[in-house]
Amino acid sequence: MKLVVAVVQDQDSNRLAGALTKNNFRATKLASTGGFLRSGNTTFLIGTDDSKIPQLLDLIRDNCRSREQLVSPVSPLGGNADSYIPYPVEVEVGGATVFVLPIEQFHHF
Amino acid sequence: MKLVVAVVQDQDSNRLAGALTKNNFRATKLASTGGFLRSGNTTFLIGTDDSKIPQLLDLIRDNCRSREQLVSPVSPLGGNADSYIPYPVEVEVGGATVFVLPIEQFHHF
Amino acid sequence: MKLVVAVVQDQDSNRLAGALTKNNFRATKLASTGGFLRSGNTTFLIGTDDSKIPQLLDLIRDNCRSREQLVSPVSPLGGNADSYIPYPVEVEVGGATVFVLPIEQFHHF
Ligand code: NI
Ligand code: NI
Ligand code: NI
Repeated sequence: MKLVVAVVQDQDSNRLAGALTKNNFRATKLASTGGFLRSGNTTFLIGTDDSKIPQLLDLIRDNCRSREQLVSPVSPLGGNADSYIPYPVEVEVGGATVFVLPIEQFHHF
Repeated sequence: MKLVVAVVQDQDSNRLAGALTKNNFRATKLASTGGFLRSGNTTFLIGTDDSKIPQLLDLIRDNCRSREQLVSPVSPLGGNADSYIPYPVEVEVGGATVFVLPIEQFHHF
Repeated sequence: MKLVVAVVQDQDSNRLAGALTKNNFRATKLASTGGFLRSGNTTFLIGTDDSKIPQLLDLIRDNCRSREQLVSPVSPLGGNADSYIPYPVEVEVGGATVFVLPIEQFHHF
């Protein structure tokens, strides 16, 4: 048994939660912000058997991996028109930071 | 010294917090949702000496154990009257998922 | 590699977050309440190499250490005038509770 702590971006959070449920992993979500990743994070606590760790890591990587995304800039209403870029730009989104923790006891009441 | 991570339902959260304080356990509460248990969870982080782990587990079990509860169904205003059950039903409430983690260092500043 | 869990008071949280960023520590913040410290806490999760643990502990201590602070009492509008103290009083603020956890695996996707 291990406790897996995964910090993922909010935009990937629902997709990961769905994938975990579908694959019978039991997780709890903690609201979190900033730091490991850009702002707006969710921290998942997932308890799982050692034998399922590779499957779990695959799920996290598949649903949260860092990737480039085209973002259409918002028109600078009242903003700085000089720095306005009138075409979509690539930004890096996603990414996950994952810690696998040993546990001494696990209980379910 | 251990770090105990306990995920409990919101409805048991205040009672457990009171019991922890009364018994001189020091805990911090994290807002959390879904997964290990039905929606509306609280995650407690509790640092404690190894010798007090059995007492702590007893407190968590006594205050959060999964049990049946009679729930009076709400009248289906605008809902599906065909599936309306006009008498109280038993639902499972409560439950706790508890991880006892080893720690390498503990500091208090 | 270690996972450091630090519970600090809200009033020290932004200063610590700034110090962590400035020193290239990567942290995520969890909203938390009560228990280890007086109400209004923030829990930081910080992943770091073993060699940087002493520096990290110094940062936490320097930014969050428990200390006395002079607080000007608020006038007891509609309150108990008998117990009103019309001069600043010293209260203890700050403080940090820190757990250093071993990890079995660390991944970054
Ligand atoms: Ni990264
Ligand atoms: Ni259960
Ligand atoms: Ni203290």
